This record gives sequence, structure tokens and C-alpha cells, in this order.
Amino acid sequence: MANFGFRHLAVVAPYEEHWREAKSAVQAEDLLQNARRTQCLADAVADCTLVVGTGTLEYRKPEQTMISLPELTPIVGAEFARGGRMAMVFGPEKRGLTREDLALCHMLVEIPTDPRQPSMNLGQAVAVCLYELARASHPLASQTDAAASAPASSAVPSRARDLELLAGVIAETMQAANYSPVAMQKANDHDVRLLLRRVALTRPDARRILGLFRRVLWRLKR
Amino acid sequence: MANFGFRHLAVVAPYEEHWREAKSAVQAEDLLQNARRTQCLADAVADCTLVVGTGTLEYRKPEQTMISLPELTPIVGAEFARGGRMAMVFGPEKRGLTREDLALCHMLVEIPTDPRQPSMNLGQAVAVCLYELARASHPLASQTDAAASAPASSAVPSRARDLELLAGVIAETMQAANYSPVAMQKANDHDVRLLLRRVALTRPDARRILGLFRRVLWRLKR
Repeated sequence: MANFGFRHLAVVAPYEEHWREAKSAVQAEDLLQNARRTQCLADAVADCTLVVGTGTLEYRKPEQTMISLPELTPIVGAEFARGGRMAMVFGPEKRGLTREDLALCHMLVEIPTDPRQPSMNLGQAVAVCLYELARASHPLASQTDAAASAPASSAVPSRARDLELLAGVIAETMQAANYSPVAMQKANDHDVRLLLRRVALTRPDARRILGLFRRVLWRLKR
Repeated sequence: MANFGFRHLAVVAPYEEHWREAKSAVQAEDLLQNARRTQCLADAVADCTLVVGTGTLEYRKPEQTMISLPELTPIVGAEFARGGRMAMVFGPEKRGLTREDLALCHMLVEIPTDPRQPSMNLGQAVAVCLYELARASHPLASQTDAAASAPASSAVPSRARDLELLAGVIAETMQAANYSPVAMQKANDHDVRLLLRRVALTRPDARRILGLFRRVLWRLKR
């Protein structure tokens, strides 16, 4: 991260002992010292408008848009241009991201690797992804520029926290309305999460939909 | 290497114990099993027509063309198109490539990193370089195609071994002709090495020059 000029690290539910060791190591970067630590991925990406998951999907059928790493740069550039903030999510070395983690991602990116040896070392995968992001442009610089030039608020994309709030209210509404049998609730919540990320809601739109569902929910609960 | 479809690994003067361990590890790739092992870098790159060095050059003034990693792909593509064979050279983690190693390189490539943290982990640097080479095209496939379509032999670039042979004969000639004082011989040999790589000799040209110097040397020694 430091090599390619990235500064904002969030660590989700780290293994306490390893994390303490890493932070107190002699060569520990400011980056580690200043890392945020959260209990779940939703908190880590709450401020982000574009959340990109990573990892081999060999054993899993992807539920979102899949893109190849070289295709990511223009997408991220467009996101910064409209005032967005982006997160890349990496899973633990051995098992990668869970299905629940992936449901918080707008898209999944795959490093194009040889089919005979698709699985990469985590540190190398991170290096390759950040090299690609830094390659064409300087994403952090663009991000700052975009924030400075303040695009029309109607175009500002929703942050992960807006979408999570909305997903929660929709889930509650589905329950209150007896929309789905109990056995289907988890699956439906999952599908709503994915859908909210597919449709690329602007912040005002997300607010509007949230208002609607809150109203519906209030009526249902009366 | 396996992740990005590269198959030809040469290891120069490895530390015996570590090398044995690496080769006998459970997960050792065919790549490690089939790696060539040489005593010096010149032997490792003998068959190559384009030798590219890597590493941060913070403490050293580069003596060759320096390019940024994203600029490398078209150069390598052109080299393959004319029937060439390319090597990327990585130094040991701590001290990098020596000045003598670098003199065997036609150019040096630098990964564009943040000036505040330019020094990369070796494994990550290798991953990033090979990702870049595999990114636009498929260099190994191109290489095979190029070999199959056999370009005009007059355009075939010189291999490292041709250049080393030539450098050796020129060095001997300089001595025999009392070209340079003894104290300057090493420096002059070094400069010749660099020059031979700068001028991008085709194989027939290298052969012609070698013939000339052999003739001169023979005359000088009579």
C-alpha cells in the first residue's frame, strides 16, 4: 500500500495477537499505525460508494458483475470524478471473502491468471491490484481533486452505509409484510443487498427509497 | 511466475540449503523442479536477446536506459516479433543487483512507486512485473508464434552469449593493444559491456564485429 501511495487501511476483526505484533514491528508504517479497525466489513466500507471485492471464484458462482483487473481503472476513475470513494476488499489468505462479504461489493475483480495456477498469494494479489490502480492515474490525487471540485449533489453515489441502512429497512418491511416465509428471509435479504448495489443508486435516490420504505414499515407496524 | 504463465526460471548461485528446501517443498511447482541453476548471471541469460534489470536505483546512478514498467510491454512485444527472447533479472531481496549484473542488462525497468516508499518486497515486485507483461498480451504465446514464423535472420537480435563473447574479445584486444592503463581495464570492460547493449546489435552484425576483433587480436598477438 505504501509503495503505491495508498493510505487508508481498515482491518476487519483481526486476530488480536498478530495485529498487535504487526503494529509494534520496527518497520511498521504509519499506514499500520493509522489503520482503522472494525468488527465487520460493513463498518469498514461504510463511507465508500464503490466497493470492489477480490479473489478467485473457482468454487463459487459469482452473483455480481465480474471484471478483469485491467478494466477496473476507468471505472474507478469515473467513480472519483463523480465524487465517490472506493474500497478494495481482500479476504483472508486461506478462505477468501465469504458470501456475506461479497454481498457488500458492487462488483468483483479478478486478476487474469493462468488457469493452471489461478490462486495467488495475498500480498502479491494486493500489490498487483494497487499497482494497476496507480498505473494509469493517481487515484488518491484524483479523489482529492474530485472532492475539491464538488460535483452536483444529485450525481453523488450512495455510500455503503446508506445502502446497508436501506437494506435493513427493506428487510424489516419484508418481514412486517409477511413478504417471504421465515426460511427464505436470509436469502431474500441477501438478494436485496446485491440488487441495491447493481442499480447504482445516487445518494438522493437512496434517501428517497429509504423514506418510502420507512413509511411503509410504519404503516405495517401500526 | 506460475500465476502469470511463465515457465523458465533460472536461479543464479542460490544458497544451497534454501534452494534444496524450496525444491523439495510439498507445494513446489514444476517451475521450481525444472529451474535451471547457473553459477553466474551471464550463463543464466546467455540465450536471451533482451535482458531487463529491475530494482530501485536510489543509491546508484543508472548507466543504461531506464524505463517505467508500463512502458515495457510494447518493447517486449517488438522483441518477440523479431524472434527475440527476453529475460527479467531480479536481485536478492536485501542488496539488489550488483553493478556487474546491471552491465549485462540492455535496460532497467522501474516500478512506479511512491517516492516516500520506493523499496518493494521482492515477491511483490516479481508479481507486479509479470502481471504487467501478461497484462496486454500473452508474451509466451507471442514468443512461440514468433519462433514459428521465423523472421528474416538479418533482423535477429544478438543473444547475451554473443555479446559476452564479443565483450571478452574486445577486452583482450584493448589489453593487447595497450589501449588503456591497467588501472582502467575493469572500467573500460564495463563500459564496453554497456555500449554493446545500447547499440542493439543484430546477430549477424555481432558476428561481423567479432570477426574483426578476432582478426585484430590475432595481429596484435603475433
